Amino acid sequence: MSGYDQLPPDFLVFNYTQTLDHFGFKPESNMTFKQKYIINSKYWGGANTTSPIFVYTGDEAPIEGVAAYAGFIVELASRFKAFLLYIEHRYYGDSMPFGDRSKSFQDTSTLGYFTSAQALADYAQLITCIKKNLSAQNSPVIAVGGSYGGMLASWFRLKYPHIVIGALASSAPILYFEDITPHDGYGAVVTKDFRETSENCYSTIRESWFEIDKVAAQTNGLMNLSNIFATCMSLNSSRQLKNFLELSYMSSAQYDNPPYDLVGTICRAIDGVPQETYILDTIAKGLNASFGGDSCIYVFDLKPSNQSGWEWQKCTEMVMPIGWGPNDTMFEAYPFDINNYTRDCIQLFGVTPRPNWVTTEFGGHDIKSVLSNFGSNIIFSNGLRDPYSSGGVLQDLSDSILAIYTNEGAHCADLQTPDPNNDPQWLVAQRDKEIKIIELWIAEYNAKLTSKVLDNKAP
Amino acid sequence: MSGYDQLPPDFLVFNYTQTLDHFGFKPESNMTFKQKYIINSKYWGGANTTSPIFVYTGDEAPIEGVAAYAGFIVELASRFKAFLLYIEHRYYGDSMPFGDRSKSFQDTSTLGYFTSAQALADYAQLITCIKKNLSAQNSPVIAVGGSYGGMLASWFRLKYPHIVIGALASSAPILYFEDITPHDGYGAVVTKDFRETSENCYSTIRESWFEIDKVAAQTNGLMNLSNIFATCMSLNSSRQLKNFLELSYMSSAQYDNPPYDLVGTICRAIDGVPQETYILDTIAKGLNASFGGDSCIYVFDLKPSNQSGWEWQKCTEMVMPIGWGPNDTMFEAYPFDINNYTRDCIQLFGVTPRPNWVTTEFGGHDIKSVLSNFGSNIIFSNGLRDPYSSGGVLQDLSDSILAIYTNEGAHCADLQTPDPNNDPQWLVAQRDKEIKIIELWIAEYNAKLTSKVLDNKAP
Repeated sequence: MSGYDQLPPDFLVFNYTQTLDHFGFKPESNMTFKQKYIINSKYWGGANTTSPIFVYTGDEAPIEGVAAYAGFIVELASRFKAFLLYIEHRYYGDSMPFGDRSKSFQDTSTLGYFTSAQALADYAQLITCIKKNLSAQNSPVIAVGGSYGGMLASWFRLKYPHIVIGALASSAPILYFEDITPHDGYGAVVTKDFRETSENCYSTIRESWFEIDKVAAQTNGLMNLSNIFATCMSLNSSRQLKNFLELSYMSSAQYDNPPYDLVGTICRAIDGVPQETYILDTIAKGLNASFGGDSCIYVFDLKPSNQSGWEWQKCTEMVMPIGWGPNDTMFEAYPFDINNYTRDCIQLFGVTPRPNWVTTEFGGHDIKSVLSNFGSNIIFSNGLRDPYSSGGVLQDLSDSILAIYTNEGAHCADLQTPDPNNDPQWLVAQRDKEIKIIELWIAEYNAKLTSKVLDNKAP
Repeated sequence: MSGYDQLPPDFLVFNYTQTLDHFGFKPESNMTFKQKYIINSKYWGGANTTSPIFVYTGDEAPIEGVAAYAGFIVELASRFKAFLLYIEHRYYGDSMPFGDRSKSFQDTSTLGYFTSAQALADYAQLITCIKKNLSAQNSPVIAVGGSYGGMLASWFRLKYPHIVIGALASSAPILYFEDITPHDGYGAVVTKDFRETSENCYSTIRESWFEIDKVAAQTNGLMNLSNIFATCMSLNSSRQLKNFLELSYMSSAQYDNPPYDLVGTICRAIDGVPQETYILDTIAKGLNASFGGDSCIYVFDLKPSNQSGWEWQKCTEMVMPIGWGPNDTMFEAYPFDINNYTRDCIQLFGVTPRPNWVTTEFGGHDIKSVLSNFGSNIIFSNGLRDPYSSGGVLQDLSDSILAIYTNEGAHCADLQTPDPNNDPQWLVAQRDKEIKIIELWIAEYNAKLTSKVLDNKAP
C-alpha cells in the first residue's frame, strides 16, 4: 500500500476470491486468488434503476493509484448518485494469482493465465457477485477505463453487454494492432506535438541524433557526452542516451496534460539558448528542463524486465506495432520488426507473441463497421496530442458509439480529477459532453425497464 | 469415417492446425491439434459481397454427420451461391487435441481445454484464416447450428460480430440455465406431446411407474418384468427399466420430426390394445413399437461415460437443470439437485461444474433485454413439440432478433435436408421465412458496404 496511504476514507479495499482460469477445467483451473477491489458508496442512491454503478476496469497498475488519481469518476458518482467499483487487473498490484509477484512471474506456467480475456471474465464474475450482494441486479453498470483499461472497457461492453450498459473508453488505441493504424502513428503525433510547439525545437531534436553518434565515435566521446548531458553515471553507449532522450520526448508528449506543460518546458529550454549554442548543449538544456533542473540526470537503461506485467502483455497479446521509417518523424528510423520483437519475447519470457489474436478476438480492420452496425453506448475519448490517439476511434460510428476528442488534450486527460479552478475550458467541455451522454444512457435504460414492467403488468 | 463414407463428392474434408489454448500462454498453450473441417464450394459465387459463407458451428458429434444429414444449409447455399464450411467441435469426431480419444479424455489435464469459449475462438480463428485464403475478407459470414450448436451459433454472433453478420440458431435452449426456465420445462413438453397425442396414452404411462415398482417388489418380480417387456437380458432393477422407458419417451418427443411419427407410434400401440389389458403389457406394447417390433428389447444402462464429450460438457459448463416434481409431468418425480449432480461429476471426471458460468459469460436472466437492446441478426427457430423449446427464445426480441417457431416441429426440424415431396407445409413455410430473413441480412450488409465505398470515394 506504500504510496497510496492517502486514499480517502470513503474508499474501502476488499479482496474477492477469483477463479484462476475461466476458460479451462484443468487441475489448476479452479484454483483461486485474491483479487483486490475498491468500493466507494459515499454517493450511492441505493439499489434502484436510476443509481448506476461505475466500474473502473483496472489496467497495468495497482488499483489504489487509480482510485487516488482518476477522480473524474468520483465526480460522475456525485452527479449520478452512483456506486463506485474499482477492480484491480490480475497480475498487477496485489492481485497476484500465485502468492506474491515473484512466484506469479516465475515462468509461463504461472504467467500463462495472464490474458485480457481472463481479466474481462474476472470483471464479469466480480460485478455479477457484487450486484447480487447489493441486491442491485437492476442497477445499470457502466465501465470506465483509460489507455489499456480503456480498451478493456470498450471490449467489455462489446463482449459482456449483459453486464454493462455502456463504456467510457479514454485514450484506448484499439486500432493500433496489425496494420490497421500506420506503424508510425505514435511517432508522428509526438513529432507533430513538438513541431506545433516550436519549429526550431522540432528541427533541433531531429538533427541531434546524428551529432550524438558523431561525438560518441570520437576519442573520449562517451565521456564527453556524459559531461554535456550531466549524467549522474557514465554512459555505456550513444544508443543508451538516444533511447533515453526518445523516451523523454515520447512520454512528455503522451502525458502533456494540464496542469503540466511538458513539451512546452522542453521546447522553451531548447528555444531559449543563445544563438550559436552547440546543438547537444541545447538538447541537454531541454532534457535538464524536463527533469526539473536536476543537478545530474540519471540515464537508466530501458531493458525490459521479465517481472513487468506490461512487458508480458506486450509479449503475448498486446502487440502494438509502433515504429517509424527514416523520414516519418523527428526520431531516428526505428522500424517495427515482428521477427525481432518475437525473438526478444522468447528470450525474455520464453513466450511467442500472437500478433493476430486481438483482432481475431475483438475485431480488426472491420471493427469500425462492426461497431457501427452492432455495438452501442461507447464513448471513445481522445486528446489529439496523445500519441496513442493515432490508434483511437476518432469519428462517431453510430448515434451511440461516439468519438469525443479535443485538439489540446493528451493521454487520459478526462479521467483525471477535475480541478474547477484551473481546468481549461476544452477539458471542462469534454467532460460535460461525456456526462450528458452517460445521462442519456441511464435515462434510456430506465425508459426501457419501465416500459418492460408496464408490459408485464398489462392484462 | 465409418458411417459417413456416403459423403457426396462436393464435400471436401480438411484439417486445420488449431491453437490448443486461445486464452492462455502456459507452456502447453501453444500446442496445436488437427481440427477437422469440411467445405463445399459447389454453389459458391466467388469472393464477392453477395455470395455468403455459411458456417456450421459444429456440436457434440462428428462433423461428417452434420454434412451428411443437415441438408438445409446446402439448399441455402444453392439459393445464395454460398460457400459452405462445417467445423468440427474440438474433442468430438476426429478433432482430438491430444492424439486420439483415449489420450484426449485421459483426465482433466487433457480435457481441461474442452470449453465452449475455446470452441468459439477456434471458429473465429479458422473462419478468419479461410476468408483470407479465399481472398473473401468482404464476404458475409452467417453461422448456422442446431441444439448445442445452435447455442454456439447465437453466442458466436453475440461475441464475434466482427466475424459473422448473423446466426440461424435452431432449437437452441439458451435460457435453460440456472433458474431462468422452470426445471420441469423439458418434462412438461414431453408430457404435453404425449397428452396431445392421446389422453389415454398419457395417463397409462403416468400410472405405469407405480405398477413397475409393485411388480419388482414381488417374488421373481424382476424376472416377471423382464418377461413382460421381452428384454434381451435380465433386468437388474426396476430403476433400470424405468430409466430406459423415460429415455424412450423423452427421445421420442425430442426427435419427433417428419417423416417419423415417434410419439404417435408409441401411443397407437398403447391405445390399440384390447380393453382390460394389463397396464404393463400395454406399456410393453408401446416400447416394442418404438423399437420397430424387435423380438427382444436391449435395455441398456444409462451410466454416463467419462469418454463422452457431452457428459464432460454437462459436468463443466452446460449445467442445464432438467428435473421435475411429483405432479409436474407424466414421469416419476425427478427433482434437479445440484449437489448430487456435482457429486456425480466429481466422481466421473474429477471436475466441479460451474452452473453460473454460462449466464456470466453469455447472459442470464436479462439475456432477452440484452439481445433486444444490443444484439441483431439472430433467428431462434424452434418446434414447440421439442422439449428443449421450453428453454428457447420464443418471442421476437427486436426487428432482427427473431423467433420462428412451429407448433408441429420437434428438435432441429428446419436444419434437416428438405424433402420437397414429403415435407409438410408448416416446415416448408418455416424454412421460407428463414430464407427471407437471411436474404435481408445479406442485402443490408451489401447496402452498407456499398454506401461505405461511396462515402470513401466522395470528394
